[in-house]
Amino acid sequence: MSVIPVKTPSATYDVTIASGLLRTLRPRLEKLNQGKPFVPFVVTSPEIWGLWSEQFLASFKEPPAVLFLPAGERYKRMASVEDLAQQLAEAGADRDSLLIAFGGGVIGDLTGFLAAIYMRGIRYVQVPTTLLAQVDSSIGGKTGANLAAGKNLIGSFHHPQAVLADTDVLGTLPATELRAGLQESIKAGIIRDAKLFSYMEKNASAILAAEPKAITHVVAASVRVKADVVSKDEKESGLRMILNFGHTIGHAIEAATNYKQLLHGEAVGWGSIAALNVAVGRKTVTPAQAERMTNLILRYGPLSPFKATAQKLVDLTARDKKNRSGVRSFILPKGIGATQIVRDVTEAELLAATEKMLTLMRQSTR
Amino acid sequence: MSVIPVKTPSATYDVTIASGLLRTLRPRLEKLNQGKPFVPFVVTSPEIWGLWSEQFLASFKEPPAVLFLPAGERYKRMASVEDLAQQLAEAGADRDSLLIAFGGGVIGDLTGFLAAIYMRGIRYVQVPTTLLAQVDSSIGGKTGANLAAGKNLIGSFHHPQAVLADTDVLGTLPATELRAGLQESIKAGIIRDAKLFSYMEKNASAILAAEPKAITHVVAASVRVKADVVSKDEKESGLRMILNFGHTIGHAIEAATNYKQLLHGEAVGWGSIAALNVAVGRKTVTPAQAERMTNLILRYGPLSPFKATAQKLVDLTARDKKNRSGVRSFILPKGIGATQIVRDVTEAELLAATEKMLTLMRQSTR
Ligand SMILES: NC(=O)c1ccc[n+]([C@@H]2O[C@H](COP(=O)([O-])OP(=O)(O)OC[C@H]3O[C@@H](n4cnc5c(N)ncnc54)[C@H](O)[C@@H]3O)[C@@H](O)[C@H]2O)c1
Ligand SMILES: NC(=O)c1ccc[n+]([C@@H]2O[C@H](COP(=O)([O-])OP(=O)(O)OC[C@H]3O[C@@H](n4cnc5c(N)ncnc54)[C@H](O)[C@@H]3O)[C@@H](O)[C@H]2O)c1
Ligand SMILES: [Zn+2]
Ligand SMILES: [Zn+2]
Repeated sequence: MSVIPVKTPSATYDVTIASGLLRTLRPRLEKLNQGKPFVPFVVTSPEIWGLWSEQFLASFKEPPAVLFLPAGERYKRMASVEDLAQQLAEAGADRDSLLIAFGGGVIGDLTGFLAAIYMRGIRYVQVPTTLLAQVDSSIGGKTGANLAAGKNLIGSFHHPQAVLADTDVLGTLPATELRAGLQESIKAGIIRDAKLFSYMEKNASAILAAEPKAITHVVAASVRVKADVVSKDEKESGLRMILNFGHTIGHAIEAATNYKQLLHGEAVGWGSIAALNVAVGRKTVTPAQAERMTNLILRYGPLSPFKATAQKLVDLTARDKKNRSGVRSFILPKGIGATQIVRDVTEAELLAATEKMLTLMRQSTR
Repeated sequence: MSVIPVKTPSATYDVTIASGLLRTLRPRLEKLNQGKPFVPFVVTSPEIWGLWSEQFLASFKEPPAVLFLPAGERYKRMASVEDLAQQLAEAGADRDSLLIAFGGGVIGDLTGFLAAIYMRGIRYVQVPTTLLAQVDSSIGGKTGANLAAGKNLIGSFHHPQAVLADTDVLGTLPATELRAGLQESIKAGIIRDAKLFSYMEKNASAILAAEPKAITHVVAASVRVKADVVSKDEKESGLRMILNFGHTIGHAIEAATNYKQLLHGEAVGWGSIAALNVAVGRKTVTPAQAERMTNLILRYGPLSPFKATAQKLVDLTARDKKNRSGVRSFILPKGIGATQIVRDVTEAELLAATEKMLTLMRQSTR
């Protein structure tokens, strides 16, 4: 079992990672809320509940109320939040209610947001069930929903009381989802943990087979990176931006393909490769280092290919939420395991780097 | 001009009250944001904009973008928030956007909530145009929207950068809205400011005619009460509850009449009278004091009558958002100008007090 603390000015809590954690939920909730009354409400999707409700309920004498959200990014909308809030209100949920987000990043983000705004804020706990949710989205307090105009444009910072990640649940996760999530772990290695990077190089088969020891190691190491970064910069005024390595072009790829063709992690994989090309040009990494990193990204593929011109992708980066009054921040690796933030990446540089990534994509997916 | 500070752990800002303030908006925004870039977006209703846009725009070289919300409590919903957020996104609003809530409490609450959740939080300024918004809703950072299941069940704490209250705009406010809003000023006097209470006794005609000197005095004194209470208890863990004097039964009256028949302040007026009846029974006020307070409430009427049984109203108080795991808090005046919070008011006490208020209503509105 790994217990990794997140310490921010607004909240301190632990991320616990272990096999079999689901069966111990209720006593953990009691410990978290020492004496304070709480009424649990689970938010999950029918699929996940079908697979894991038995383990989830094992420690509850009285089964908690369960609210369902259909699976899929397209339900990450204000209408779902309103609908769930209405269900809470009808069930008599008050300020002593405690939400349990039991699902992937969509359920986690939306439930966190619901907890942030229901009666101006109630408690919640993250019980993430995808690799991406365990290593990334459940940690750091970013919650939200999508608008027609763009992803995550609506949201709040609202930290969970705890993140309880049971690696067993990854056993039922589709392989493509696992692989896509692992791109965020590779990212964590690239930006801040050379050891994690090497571990993922050396143990790719075991990790991709979700072997308990290997996957738990990777989840814990990835969580440590995110927890550490978030603890040092809660509100993304500086350091936290490094978590966006690979995401500038990654988000553009998602937008260009209407968020339908690629999983987020896949888009980040391609985006990371493009960013590495910029880094080589800037000499913040050597060509050999870039090659190693690119190879690891592809090793955890195949990443779905897509159709978009470099120009289109670069145009789409202009709308990145990280921009402030037009200034573009860009995260580059400094060797393997460190980063730097630059603000003067030109459109020409981005274009060339993206073009090179697209060429690689055409070669590798022929 | 009165400048009244609000100082909470999460924000410090001023409420400025003066005639002619609207014409000085732009330089005030610049001063508030010293050097930091900002792009203003006004949120208002067509009616208010029709009446006051000339004054509003007087200090702007380039007119700001204006987003419209139709007037009325029924538009205080998530769908409106989403719609406005979508308009912001389409207009390219980023984290440097600054919202200006120009309207009554509905516009203020909804715009504050929009600012709280757009890109996880952007700046905003309150420019309240109703008496209720100037003395109450614009101050303290409570923002939100209604659900079908109940009012203000969704929301955030998010403070404005400033509250800029121009008392001139009250000149176009319907008389019923002015009177209803003044019930919150009477409340402020009852719970914390005996001088305000006396001033309102002595100057009722001038205040009800919205004479500049009198109305500005009342607005400033009421704001002082709210600002002071909020500064001492931002998140309603204790003291802030006293602002709910008259609101337990008041909210029940609103619910019983589907929020359609009475203005909020009118319901609070009746609710205050019921609470005073409890207070007499508990001897926290003398019958003579209760009479004085009841008289002042009625003097700022007529309060619209309504149909509901005492039992119905008392049943509805059980759903009060202030309840936590079933414990009911109740605010009673202690003489005129002070309060105490009690947690053991029985249903029988509430019933008798409400019955007495209903009898008074039937007499006074025959
Ligand atoms: N808050 C943050 O900091 C943050 C960070 C990164 C991503 N995100 C968000 O996370 C979301 C993506 O999350 P995701 O990748 O987990 O996608 P997801 O939540 O859509 O889950 C992917 C799919 O896997 C299914 N699933 C989940 N757990 C399963 C299990 N154990 N067994 C079988 N099937 C399972 C889901 O039903 C879904 O169909 C995006 O909305 C993104 O914006 C948020
Ligand atoms: N946030 C808080 O702490 C808090 C406190 C109290 C009340 N509230 C909220 O405030 C809302 C009620 O606010 P309200 O009473 O201002 O109602 P409102 O915003 O609906 O305004 C009342 C009416 O007056 C019109 N109007 C506004 N200004 C005008 C002007 N200068 N001239 C002419 N017409 C004008 C409006 O268009 C509307 O029709 C409720 O939703 C309530 O929940 C919030
Ligand atoms: Zn990501
Ligand atoms: Zn009120």
